[in-house]
Amino acid sequence: MSSYTAQMSTDVNKSETASLIASSKVKGTSVYNRQGESLGSIHDVMLNKRSGQVSYAVLSFGGFLGMGEKYHPVPWKKLTYDERYGGYVIDLDKRQLEGARAYGTSETPDWTTGTYGGSIDKYYDGVPTL
Amino acid sequence: MSSYTAQMSTDVNKSETASLIASSKVKGTSVYNRQGESLGSIHDVMLNKRSGQVSYAVLSFGGFLGMGEKYHPVPWKKLTYDERYGGYVIDLDKRQLEGARAYGTSETPDWTTGTYGGSIDKYYDGVPTL
Repeated sequence: MSSYTAQMSTDVNKSETASLIASSKVKGTSVYNRQGESLGSIHDVMLNKRSGQVSYAVLSFGGFLGMGEKYHPVPWKKLTYDERYGGYVIDLDKRQLEGARAYGTSETPDWTTGTYGGSIDKYYDGVPTL
Repeated sequence: MSSYTAQMSTDVNKSETASLIASSKVKGTSVYNRQGESLGSIHDVMLNKRSGQVSYAVLSFGGFLGMGEKYHPVPWKKLTYDERYGGYVIDLDKRQLEGARAYGTSETPDWTTGTYGGSIDKYYDGVPTL
């Protein structure tokens, strides 16, 4: 094995293991768009409890000093982790996020029927993936 | 489409959508073995922050009234969600869980090097998957 190949596999392994995070620590991770604007932070993630795959990131966005803040679920596949920011990047401008389905901090959407998740998928289908 | 097929796809869709859970709500989900014995509950899950796939469930097990409780990371693929229990089932007896790597409630293992996760994988490789 050449030293270049050895170096490569070391880096890949390192990045894979360093990318484990406790779900309790995901909360608060910053989210940006491609222009570097803040789109808030991750409030929670919605998991498929069988497969263990995250389906949606719930972004906490907007408001001031905790007032007017809303939760915006975004399909997980739209998020790309970026080491440089130590956070996630989405190809979305603020207006697109503001126009998306969101709920108040004291509300809980009904995820059980599939209608809610489906409406979010539909909205973001029109938004490019990085 | 026959009515049997229609029924099938309805059930599959229903089970897929009903299986979404907020990661903040996963905590406390019960874990049992095939004999129906309690193996504690889920304390946290370790996510791959790029792929959004859960790699390990961290079980809270043992102790009494919060004393002597330990956190036991178990590879996610060893857990099977069972609607009847409203929780997860692992093919593991209590002694196997007690013999596995665990850490105290005030400790935090170093997941960054891969050594810790690797030692857990190795231990559970000898444990059958349901």
